[in-house]
Amino acid sequence: MDTSRSSSQSAGNITVEGNAGVLVARLDGGPHAVFDPEMSKQLKELVDRADRDPDIHAVVFTGTHPDRFLSHSDVRWLQKGGTGFPPINTGLAKLVARSARLINRVPVVRTLAGMTRLKTLLQLDSFHATFLKMNASGTIFVAALNGSALAVGAELAFACDLRIMADGEYVIGLTEALLALTPGGGGSQRLPRLIGTQQTLLAVLEGRPFTSAEALSLGAVDEVVPKEKVLARSIERAEYLSLRSKKSLGAIKRSIYFGSSLSLEDGLQFEHAEFLVRDQSKEAQGRMLEYIAATEATGELPLLNRETYARALAAGRIGGSSSE
Amino acid sequence: MDTSRSSSQSAGNITVEGNAGVLVARLDGGPHAVFDPEMSKQLKELVDRADRDPDIHAVVFTGTHPDRFLSHSDVRWLQKGGTGFPPINTGLAKLVARSARLINRVPVVRTLAGMTRLKTLLQLDSFHATFLKMNASGTIFVAALNGSALAVGAELAFACDLRIMADGEYVIGLTEALLALTPGGGGSQRLPRLIGTQQTLLAVLEGRPFTSAEALSLGAVDEVVPKEKVLARSIERAEYLSLRSKKSLGAIKRSIYFGSSLSLEDGLQFEHAEFLVRDQSKEAQGRMLEYIAATEATGELPLLNRETYARALAAGRIGGSSSE
Amino acid sequence: MDTSRSSSQSAGNITVEGNAGVLVARLDGGPHAVFDPEMSKQLKELVDRADRDPDIHAVVFTGTHPDRFLSHSDVRWLQKGGTGFPPINTGLAKLVARSARLINRVPVVRTLAGMTRLKTLLQLDSFHATFLKMNASGTIFVAALNGSALAVGAELAFACDLRIMADGEYVIGLTEALLALTPGGGGSQRLPRLIGTQQTLLAVLEGRPFTSAEALSLGAVDEVVPKEKVLARSIERAEYLSLRSKKSLGAIKRSIYFGSSLSLEDGLQFEHAEFLVRDQSKEAQGRMLEYIAATEATGELPLLNRETYARALAAGRIGGSSSE
Repeated sequence: MDTSRSSSQSAGNITVEGNAGVLVARLDGGPHAVFDPEMSKQLKELVDRADRDPDIHAVVFTGTHPDRFLSHSDVRWLQKGGTGFPPINTGLAKLVARSARLINRVPVVRTLAGMTRLKTLLQLDSFHATFLKMNASGTIFVAALNGSALAVGAELAFACDLRIMADGEYVIGLTEALLALTPGGGGSQRLPRLIGTQQTLLAVLEGRPFTSAEALSLGAVDEVVPKEKVLARSIERAEYLSLRSKKSLGAIKRSIYFGSSLSLEDGLQFEHAEFLVRDQSKEAQGRMLEYIAATEATGELPLLNRETYARALAAGRIGGSSSE
Repeated sequence: MDTSRSSSQSAGNITVEGNAGVLVARLDGGPHAVFDPEMSKQLKELVDRADRDPDIHAVVFTGTHPDRFLSHSDVRWLQKGGTGFPPINTGLAKLVARSARLINRVPVVRTLAGMTRLKTLLQLDSFHATFLKMNASGTIFVAALNGSALAVGAELAFACDLRIMADGEYVIGLTEALLALTPGGGGSQRLPRLIGTQQTLLAVLEGRPFTSAEALSLGAVDEVVPKEKVLARSIERAEYLSLRSKKSLGAIKRSIYFGSSLSLEDGLQFEHAEFLVRDQSKEAQGRMLEYIAATEATGELPLLNRETYARALAAGRIGGSSSE
Repeated sequence: MDTSRSSSQSAGNITVEGNAGVLVARLDGGPHAVFDPEMSKQLKELVDRADRDPDIHAVVFTGTHPDRFLSHSDVRWLQKGGTGFPPINTGLAKLVARSARLINRVPVVRTLAGMTRLKTLLQLDSFHATFLKMNASGTIFVAALNGSALAVGAELAFACDLRIMADGEYVIGLTEALLALTPGGGGSQRLPRLIGTQQTLLAVLEGRPFTSAEALSLGAVDEVVPKEKVLARSIERAEYLSLRSKKSLGAIKRSIYFGSSLSLEDGLQFEHAEFLVRDQSKEAQGRMLEYIAATEATGELPLLNRETYARALAAGRIGGSSSE
């Protein structure tokens, strides 16, 4: 029985429900729920579209497999990727990784390069870039973890802004050490930012995943709910955040994900630049004028009034009027 | 009724008590407790003085408003700041931010530029630099949070070394998303360093502040005490830290705030340089010689003797003699 | 009574048990359990050997003193180090630190420089480089904290991958502020990565160490066990991790310690390069092929089968066969 996706007819597929507001993206990695080049390609297209379209505010990912979000990569893909170029050392690998990134930015070169033995390498780099775009985007990405997620399955979840996981005998984590590998989809970079360096180090050295309960207590997921409520709760949280200005959410995400990973001084400048762009936007200018008008009309600052503030959180905006 | 500070006669004011040891700085932002250009200017002068004067060891900030530390910025100031220059994109904004920083360093250019439409922009950058100087200084800054602190009010508190907050229905946090903005006073950079990236992300995307209890449990403040004890407890902690060498405290603050935000390798070099400067200082040389003498006189290492150590913590120094 | 190590006949010594698998290194700093130039030299030799030798998988450090892991440095060494060069400011110190690093990389220059007054400075820089090599190595380093560890004693423990501490009246921490110094062996850089910036700041500004219980609750140590079990438990955990591929452990340690201290974008590229090198290794290629074969033979992914996974964790590898 041939269970490798790359040599079978079927390939990974992402079914998208909705075309505005909150989209639901169902990850179908076949009977084994694996992540393969076709799913990587569809993921890139979805993220590009969701980032670009001002009417798409959030994407909720979930798995079609009864017990899994995504098992891990198609191992045949990873294995072939390791034979696609001559043996290299770490120094050379850094150059290759840098080139791959540059090549991916030039469509024509990408097509040519894609025909060579660098193809698999470029595919691997391409999903790296997709995860990074998720972090830079004003679109909110939520992982509705209906079951287990190992290796790249966990890494996709860690690249989301929010993780809601099913209660039960499910696990999430980085297993690469057991295959004499090391994480390659951002896991060793994003997990420390969620749960700290030391807890990441111990788990990744062991190749040990977390149960839902452990993941919650460490901060690797944000909520654990009964399995049948995972999707609904994920949509609910996505809708709540979606009421905020998409451009504002993007600026906040970039300031926190990118800015706060820089030196303090550079991070402050990064944040300041994002602030200046927002401050002169028509959207923020309008809200600030409304805020000033509401302050003058009521004699108090709306954000310092508990009821007004609570209404603003529910509406995703303050300003006093319902129009924009 | 005109409640905007910028168009009213009154302006923000900081009253400073004491002129050596631990100063108490009372932030008076008028009836609305807002942060405006005049308060920003006085804050800069105070921080410059406290940093420079070897006899000033700590500054405790508190609000004069009965229920607020600082509400947030004067919104008219922010709003006008967004109209002071042509619409820009993020790339350009980075250049502007960098220029503003450079211009602020050259007094003559600053005066000229201050007359142009860049005035507000330069004011915003100037309080950024003030917060950074607080992090670099051997002076200890404590936020005695007598009430709520939103946006720049929270950001000033996050730029302090210690935060003591009143128990009760007060909140602290970053509300910019509700105005279609993004934090601009360092909040998106300093809060992740206090409570982690993910808790910061969720709160800032929502525009949701923390209650005192939440802030304490997350680590956004260091202590929560009854309101009437906030100032006294803040002074007490400031006095305890003030017994240590001011130059040593500065080196420690820079190593942790700046060094530990660099790559591990650069951070280690940063720390090493700070260590070398301290190691050759007259002050440290004197204490090391005393330590060696005390070791030889007693036959044991003073830091490894529990009683001697407890006395050293209370005195802020070890060495065995009371003179220096 | 002369208790300074540098002027006495005896000098620090490290006794190493075993020559493959898990080594036990006993730190003997004499009656005062201090870290001196001779111990620094032996530590460097041990770390170099353990890193280089593919048959050495872990090193467990413990102290020979009944109540101490390591007290702190020989203070005479630090004090003399501060007199070995003309008074310098922070800017110059950075250059000196950088030069020291470069000089240490060129053996001949090192010998010449070692004869000059820079000798002590170079020794200090040399143990910095040793700690960094521990972080970069595929060898696992464990601190079996049989007792207290202050200053460089704590810094050596923080440079290890795992810390097991004795229950009881022992302390671990950074005491430099009390001598008007600042940490110089990486403590201000590695402790924030273990317990966060704010908890580090408060403790280091005070010069206050943590008890075993506090250290555990903050995350400064990983386990606290009865004193008589510290060494056995440390060896047990070292043996468990040692079953994994040494090269894989090295890639994971570098990705987490170094990669995750870079900007998010640079960290992802760092990780990716480490992944590419592992992916094309004979070792990982073999395991992936075994994994694919096992998947095809059993019809299921071994990592998604709970029993197979549990066995893989115990064996340190997945793949289905016991040979390699």
